[in-house]
Order: sequence, then structure tokens, then C-alpha cells
Amino acid sequence: MMNAKPALYTCLSPSLLHLYDVSKSIVVVIDVLRATSTIATALYNGARCVIPVDSVSRCIELGKQIDGITAGERDGKVAEGLEYGNSSFEYPKEFISNKTLVLTTTNGTRLLHMALEKGASEIITGSFPNLSAICNHLIEQNRPVILGCAAWKDRINIEDTLFAGAVISRIKDQFSLNCDASHIAETLYHEAKHDLFEFMKKNDASHYHRLMDFGLEDDIRYCLTPDVANILPEYLDGKLVVKREITQQKNR
Amino acid sequence: MMNAKPALYTCLSPSLLHLYDVSKSIVVVIDVLRATSTIATALYNGARCVIPVDSVSRCIELGKQIDGITAGERDGKVAEGLEYGNSSFEYPKEFISNKTLVLTTTNGTRLLHMALEKGASEIITGSFPNLSAICNHLIEQNRPVILGCAAWKDRINIEDTLFAGAVISRIKDQFSLNCDASHIAETLYHEAKHDLFEFMKKNDASHYHRLMDFGLEDDIRYCLTPDVANILPEYLDGKLVVKREITQQKNR
Repeated sequence: MMNAKPALYTCLSPSLLHLYDVSKSIVVVIDVLRATSTIATALYNGARCVIPVDSVSRCIELGKQIDGITAGERDGKVAEGLEYGNSSFEYPKEFISNKTLVLTTTNGTRLLHMALEKGASEIITGSFPNLSAICNHLIEQNRPVILGCAAWKDRINIEDTLFAGAVISRIKDQFSLNCDASHIAETLYHEAKHDLFEFMKKNDASHYHRLMDFGLEDDIRYCLTPDVANILPEYLDGKLVVKREITQQKNR
Repeated sequence: MMNAKPALYTCLSPSLLHLYDVSKSIVVVIDVLRATSTIATALYNGARCVIPVDSVSRCIELGKQIDGITAGERDGKVAEGLEYGNSSFEYPKEFISNKTLVLTTTNGTRLLHMALEKGASEIITGSFPNLSAICNHLIEQNRPVILGCAAWKDRINIEDTLFAGAVISRIKDQFSLNCDASHIAETLYHEAKHDLFEFMKKNDASHYHRLMDFGLEDDIRYCLTPDVANILPEYLDGKLVVKREITQQKNR
């Protein structure tokens, strides 16, 4: 077939990642509530980089070594020994600009490391705040894509599935979708898109509940808002940095 | 809490089964296209039992030992050495009544054996042809439930997810649904229910394609039709048999 479109797959849980050919793909790590939303926001507001780590102890250790800001939550509170939490609102420009954020998250960091081990050709992080940057980049690259949902302790969640659906609804014409999970995600997004927050509430999304119980409605609403931190975070040498597109020229 | 409702979880792929507490649950094995539809039909039409096996060689061996009918397909054709295929239409009453069917399937049999190994308190098989029997039984039992989708080589598929959604839409008031996958399945079913076949077609379901390429549209339509073989298959001592409810008395 001439000019075959690249494949797009949606992986709804890290437990399913072994089913996909990660090594030839761009992997989009999706952890909507709240890791990848916070990453986009911190970088958008001028952070030099965000270093994702998988434990509080590693976060403290690294924070000291490089004089970075340590951040992360466990059970909805700033984890003991860290300075800041997982909320995007904690990282305005005047605070985070030119600083390094060492962020400990569980689900998102784990998936990111899995994609790295499996030799992903590129790893970027996606969330509603940087939806358009992700979509534009994927169309521009014209390479195979895996939308990787971080989920919650491997359990499929609504918010990451919705984000995958949002991406698919925008870029599907440029890709080959031989993947039922992608169609499920797009259908879900189609049902939800007029009011994502209301959809999460109505469907009793488990993480929605968890965060609402901590009084984080504004955080959830922010994390469901498209393009308010519209940059492209790429994982390079252990750090998430803003990817600068070398050229806008299309090789097509 | 008094009279707490039992939990219902939806497991969209066998690769996710380890996340759920199988040992205390009724597991509904779902393999809509076509294993569990065929199982319901053969039993509804009077088969003494259906013995699911995971390989063609085991199917041939067992068929000889017990003088059973051997059936199964590989790549859409009757597998070499077997007598019949996976189509419900091959098992009318006048043929299958009082016979034993030895059926080799890949995805459904594997999930069934996984549920058995993990000590499920009861294993039953579900499909649209026996939708009401499943729903009535689950409500009657009032115990924890896992809707287990057989998927396709561990990849989530639309048809099994739709069936899980159909069950959830009917019984959700009697269960506690702290499970995003259940809400996703129900939303999908809600979108599809007016014409399941058309939804499969529109969404390019991968297994729909596979079967349509073999000219099996009637088979697909049958497998999406509720209650045309409305019995309850239970897995007992290596065989699927019609479960006879001992009593209709409700312990509530």
C-alpha cells in the first residue's frame, strides 16, 4: 500500500503495554489527574525541567543533590519530607520559572519508565492543558503512536481514557486505527465532551471522588481544560523538557 | 454499613484479572464472538454439556475418549481434524440434543481456566443470547461479581465490553460499582444499544471485520441478539452445564 497511514493504538492500562510494539512508536504518557497536567503547567510556566521519580525518598535525595523543588502527594496530602504537592496551581510563573521540579508520582512515572525500558522511539506527556500541542506534534511526526494511559494502580480510569479519546477525535483521519480500545475511548469522549467535569461526576469516576473528598474541585476542572498550558513535554535523559520543534516543515 | 450491596467489577482483558479478588466472586466469562454465544446455544438446544478445551489436539483426544462432537475454528475455518465450527447455527436441537460438545476456543477457554485457578466461587458464561439469564442469576445471588471479558489475545474488544455494559445497565442498582471500567462499558452500551450491529460496523470493531471477511454476518447478528438461548451455563468439574436453580426463594 502506498502512503499507508501510521498505526495508532490506545493502551488503557500499563498492564497491557506488553501487547504493543513500543519500540517503533511515539508513546504519549497520560496521567490526567494530575501528574501530566502538572508537568505541562510547570513547563509552560517556565520550569527548566521536571524530573519524575517513583518514590518520596528518591525525590528528597535528588532534590538535595541538584537543589530542585521537591513535590508529590500521597493520599491527597503533600508527602512527608517534600515541599509541594501535585496541584498545577502551586506552580505559577513567578514561582517555578527557571527552576527544576522533582516530582514523585506513582502511576505516571511507572508507565514512563516502562515505555523507556521497552525502547520507545519518543516519550511525551499528554493532558488536556496541552491537548493541541500533542495533537499537532503527532500529526506532524507521521509515525506510529501509542496513547498510554497511566491508569490507577493498573485499573483503567475514565479521565485518561477520555484524554485518549480527545486526541483520537482530532487526529484519527491521519492514522490507521485497528484498535478497539481507541474506538471505545473515542466513543466515551464523544459522550463526555460537552461537559467533562459533569461526565466524571455522573459516572462516579473513582479518582474524581478521591480528589473531591480532598476539596480539589478546582484542580479537577483545571485538569480537564484544554490548551491552558499548551507546550510539548518530552522525556530526554531522565528529564521532561519542552520539546522545541526544529522545523515546521512537513516531510509529506 | 447495613445491607451493603455486593461489589461489581468489570475486567476488560484477562491481562487485568490479577487486579481483582476473584476468589470471592462469581466470574462471568464473556466471549461474545463467538464462544460463549455458541455455548449458550448448544446447551439451550439440549446438549448434555460443553467441554471447553484450549487446543485442537486436546479436542481431538477428548472427543475420541468420550465419543463427543469435536468443534473449533482457527482463522475462521473448521480446524483440521475437527468436525464442526464455532457457529451457533451448527447446533440446532435435532443435532445437538443429548450430545456432548468438545469445543476448542482460545480466548474464552483461557480466561475460564484463569478464573478457576484463582478460585472463583462460581464461573458462568455470558453472551447476548443468554443476557437475561445472567442478569437474573446475578441479582438472585446477591454476591460479588466480576464481569470478565475474554478479549482478543488480551486486547480489549468492543463486543465483550458491550455485553458487560448491557449487564451493568440492567443490574447496577443492586450492586456497588466502584469501577471506572464498568462505567466505561455502560456508556459504550448506552451509545450502541439501539443497533449493536451497526455500532460494531461504524466503529470498525476488529473482530467484526475478521468475521465479516469470512461471510459471517448472520453469525454476528445472532451473537448480538438478546435472549434467544436464555439459559445459564455453569462451569462444574471441567464441563459447562445448564445450572438448575435449586430454589427461587430469595434470601433477602
